[in-house]
Amino acid sequence: MQLLDGKETSRQIREEIAAEVAAMKERGERPPHLAAILVGHDGGSETYVAAKIKGCAECGFKSTLVRFEDDVTEERLLEEIEKMNADPELDGFIVQLPLPKHINERRITEAIDWRKDVDGFHPVNVGRLSIGLPGFRSATPAGIMDLLERAGIKTKGMHAVVLGRSNIVGKPVASLLMQKSEPGDCTVTVCHSSTRNIKEICRQADLIIAALGSPGFVTEDMVKEGAVVVDVGTTRVPDATRKSGWRLRGDVDFDAVAPKCSWITPVPGGVGPMTIVSLLKNTLLARRGGVFE
Amino acid sequence: MQLLDGKETSRQIREEIAAEVAAMKERGERPPHLAAILVGHDGGSETYVAAKIKGCAECGFKSTLVRFEDDVTEERLLEEIEKMNADPELDGFIVQLPLPKHINERRITEAIDWRKDVDGFHPVNVGRLSIGLPGFRSATPAGIMDLLERAGIKTKGMHAVVLGRSNIVGKPVASLLMQKSEPGDCTVTVCHSSTRNIKEICRQADLIIAALGSPGFVTEDMVKEGAVVVDVGTTRVPDATRKSGWRLRGDVDFDAVAPKCSWITPVPGGVGPMTIVSLLKNTLLARRGGVFE
Repeated sequence: MQLLDGKETSRQIREEIAAEVAAMKERGERPPHLAAILVGHDGGSETYVAAKIKGCAECGFKSTLVRFEDDVTEERLLEEIEKMNADPELDGFIVQLPLPKHINERRITEAIDWRKDVDGFHPVNVGRLSIGLPGFRSATPAGIMDLLERAGIKTKGMHAVVLGRSNIVGKPVASLLMQKSEPGDCTVTVCHSSTRNIKEICRQADLIIAALGSPGFVTEDMVKEGAVVVDVGTTRVPDATRKSGWRLRGDVDFDAVAPKCSWITPVPGGVGPMTIVSLLKNTLLARRGGVFE
Repeated sequence: MQLLDGKETSRQIREEIAAEVAAMKERGERPPHLAAILVGHDGGSETYVAAKIKGCAECGFKSTLVRFEDDVTEERLLEEIEKMNADPELDGFIVQLPLPKHINERRITEAIDWRKDVDGFHPVNVGRLSIGLPGFRSATPAGIMDLLERAGIKTKGMHAVVLGRSNIVGKPVASLLMQKSEPGDCTVTVCHSSTRNIKEICRQADLIIAALGSPGFVTEDMVKEGAVVVDVGTTRVPDATRKSGWRLRGDVDFDAVAPKCSWITPVPGGVGPMTIVSLLKNTLLARRGGVFE
């Protein structure tokens, strides 16, 4: 069993990005510029946005954080998005989700110019990913593909079983895995809450992508000897031994499953660190302008 | 075994559309208006476009056919598309594919305003379909879903196996089948040229969608007793007994497979007739304007 080490892989990719940005600056070019819009003071959102800003700094990007209070109007947010869409010195931006109930998330997401939608949530980017056209791949699925590729795992012909059909992980990762590309070119099965024989289907998998948000769901009896297991779950579970009172737990029963795997991601330190680095990669792509032909 | 009769189902839907259009006209409203751009004189394209125009007439739509010769420039086509995008009395239009080699099909498809893209090929419509937002569903996948729904087949929890990953059938029908909707809510497996154990996977299927373009590919030993089989293949094979010298053959070995099925589509008369009626449904939706919120 080998670890799919997202911490180390993301560090390598960050270094490569930083080297490219340093070369840009040496040539007198403007570095990539990422902006984030943060509404309110949700703990999780604060943490994610802070990590994104920190990632920008590590890679030499310019970053801008625009904050609004919880009672901001949708109109005011749309105004800010229009400003960012029009700013020629801003390459990409994100609106940190979730948003307060009185704001229509869909309208906000669709208001972002897809050429600056480095989160990859805009329908144009979702569609381009499905068709196999260049575009911004959403961060978690893209991070998973990079993790597989950097580990040298040849996925062609593998049977990939995706657990979960969310718009931000399950569906787009299924799309990427079925493309005729490497990594990719998998037979892909998408399972979810209405799937009848999920254990039996998982046992056929050469590659399992677990993205249900259900701690410890994937047990030893569901995994074939030699399978590759990617755990996208990050649920906070109580842990009295920690100062915080909680720890992150994945969708996979790691201790029991790991001995059967050829490769497996730990939680934390697997998919998580890859997500932010994918956002930085998208921003660099946006700066290069090459994604839009 | 029961036939999934696309000819009869499409006739019913056409009647419903015609009744709605007749009521529109009685209220003094403009009927739906579909335009088609046809380049060159390809036999297949001529036939398809003629059938679409005929469908419009049967439903009381206004239709417009704009023809160009094979040597039309991309610029001239884009100009025509811009004109159609801007025409407030035109609800939807299609550019019949394939186009001559010197024309960039992708650029043409993306130039169409997605609000008039009744073929559902624009990345925005592909993305909206994947996310589960309202939009134009591409004609063949939408026709398949209608056929299942009208037959009263409850697909929730079924294991659907899609053979083929094309952008116009395999991928979008997989997207529709995995949505939490009825029909839909299936466990979905997408198989293709790199799939290793396609027979074994098919034998697990409660629902098979065959869209490979490989005549007679699905044989009796690949189908579980009681399965639903939808055949999207329409390959012309030589047939000396016909005046034309050919007949249409599906991807399924119908005679051997049919006795095992609960439902099966014939070829011709299954998915084919549903495709045009889906285009008409999309045009009616566009006329109503309700798809765009």
